[in-house]
Amino acid sequence: MGHNSEIRCAITGTSGFVAPYVIEELAHNSLGISEILCIDLELPSHSEKTSIPATYVLLDMMDRTALESTLRDFQPDYIIHLASLSSVAESWKKPSLSFLNNLNIFLNVLESMSKIEKRCRILSVGSSEQYGVVTSSDIPIRETTPQNPQSPYAVARVSQEMLSRLFVDNFGLDIILTRSFNHVGPRQLSKFAIPSFIEQIVRQIRSNSSAITIATGNLDIIRDFLDVRDVAKAYVALLKKGKTGHIYNVCSGSGYTLSQIVSFISEIIGRPVQVTHNPDLVRPADNPVIIGDCTKLRTETGWIPSITLKETLKAMIDYTSQHLT
Amino acid sequence: MGHNSEIRCAITGTSGFVAPYVIEELAHNSLGISEILCIDLELPSHSEKTSIPATYVLLDMMDRTALESTLRDFQPDYIIHLASLSSVAESWKKPSLSFLNNLNIFLNVLESMSKIEKRCRILSVGSSEQYGVVTSSDIPIRETTPQNPQSPYAVARVSQEMLSRLFVDNFGLDIILTRSFNHVGPRQLSKFAIPSFIEQIVRQIRSNSSAITIATGNLDIIRDFLDVRDVAKAYVALLKKGKTGHIYNVCSGSGYTLSQIVSFISEIIGRPVQVTHNPDLVRPADNPVIIGDCTKLRTETGWIPSITLKETLKAMIDYTSQHLT
Repeated sequence: MGHNSEIRCAITGTSGFVAPYVIEELAHNSLGISEILCIDLELPSHSEKTSIPATYVLLDMMDRTALESTLRDFQPDYIIHLASLSSVAESWKKPSLSFLNNLNIFLNVLESMSKIEKRCRILSVGSSEQYGVVTSSDIPIRETTPQNPQSPYAVARVSQEMLSRLFVDNFGLDIILTRSFNHVGPRQLSKFAIPSFIEQIVRQIRSNSSAITIATGNLDIIRDFLDVRDVAKAYVALLKKGKTGHIYNVCSGSGYTLSQIVSFISEIIGRPVQVTHNPDLVRPADNPVIIGDCTKLRTETGWIPSITLKETLKAMIDYTSQHLT
Repeated sequence: MGHNSEIRCAITGTSGFVAPYVIEELAHNSLGISEILCIDLELPSHSEKTSIPATYVLLDMMDRTALESTLRDFQPDYIIHLASLSSVAESWKKPSLSFLNNLNIFLNVLESMSKIEKRCRILSVGSSEQYGVVTSSDIPIRETTPQNPQSPYAVARVSQEMLSRLFVDNFGLDIILTRSFNHVGPRQLSKFAIPSFIEQIVRQIRSNSSAITIATGNLDIIRDFLDVRDVAKAYVALLKKGKTGHIYNVCSGSGYTLSQIVSFISEIIGRPVQVTHNPDLVRPADNPVIIGDCTKLRTETGWIPSITLKETLKAMIDYTSQHLT
């Protein structure tokens, strides 16, 4: 580590859903990265073979001294900060823990980099949850839509942005900020709606059920789902072409009801799918419609979504059929 | 502790500047409080004799279990949360530490009270720093003026408010929020401008200096100074008549330049005071004018400032003359 002629990228939260896709995307190497450092509490359950050498460091990012020392040794040119406790539900059960861990690990990255005198571009990943309750006139949601965070998790993300701005303005850090909408794709955990639908369906196909029935929450809500591979492309595009201190929605710009998604899945598998409504799966006071506006991301970086929702669903069904145990 | 017929008030941050004045104000007993619990890391250097029995608990509020247990035993009807790391300068030196400690201890109060099934009114003390950079058209600053926080300390206070709103809306906590402007009064530490001027002057009077000269920063800035005893009255008035979830500016509504304050001091001591400009005392990018609007506090609680700035300065000079060592 630490050779000056190389371009190095540190990624945090590498045991999560998005990181392996980002690593795969970096291998296309439009940033010229020659070394990747993966920071997390644990190793990923899945890792892609990649043409770029990747080192895995098991580290608690709450330990700032250890984090600073690791980053100082590595001398990153880029940091992609994916580590977070991203569960809104958990943030209600343990507000302090969720709020503070989220912010603490992020602040530890910023404070470390403000001490390490190395020009480094940092991608701070935020969430569409920051917008909170929106009205129909706010759709599609632009970066200028006022924030109205409704959970400790969402407040933490708003605070992360406010702190980022201070570090850009006062310490000259080069931070790009996202507000990322719903992700979807192969390997997503089945606690999320779409992978849960697919897992239920694949199990019933396997057991030769005569009819396929899935338990769902409210299917009328409209969400903006972006394939995780397009999310990864957006993050790399932002590292390349984003503007320091700017905020970018990362989304598809299109909305679908969960009902439509069930229909798409039914088409793909060529069988009817019945739904039973499970009140336990309905979130209280959920926004009826969330669709983001990705004009800024598209215009400034040239990124466009490359995978249709149907293609994503097909890939998820294929992956789940092959790997579900 | 814990008799049900009594009305109990817990106060955090009792080793600080404001707490003894709040305790004194509570002794006028318009809230009918019969027992006070003082929570801090250390005992106060100054404590008023009070007609209400006060117990001091030395406790690190970062330890939520200990805090919850203490509050559960005490069963407070009121909590006045004064504890904070309130130095903006420190928040720049150690952003994580300042930010997270401030929020952590506050969240620990809220999370504890959301678990203790006891109706309790909580006063969350915020800061005029939350407004950040303001323009002349924002003066006097109302509660509706957009926030534009410019330090980790100020971001922490904005986050504290956002989190308070969630706990009011989702856990039914009864929280009143202040944005408190500059405080001034006897016993204020001389790291602040006015007590520093007075300490320098008192030392020179004592040493029979022929001319009195003080080192100052920028004397042209205009600030809204409220006597700490009026601050204490405002906090008690808000506990009595404030509206749950509402935000109140706590300020005098009047602005003075630091030059004017030096003139007032000169009048009071009956001697000319010369100033020498010390660039080290000038804060970068400070707001030229901060004056708050206290209409909401006055209208809703009947509170009015009772001590003029000249009376405050006289009391400070008297106190410093008697106690400076």
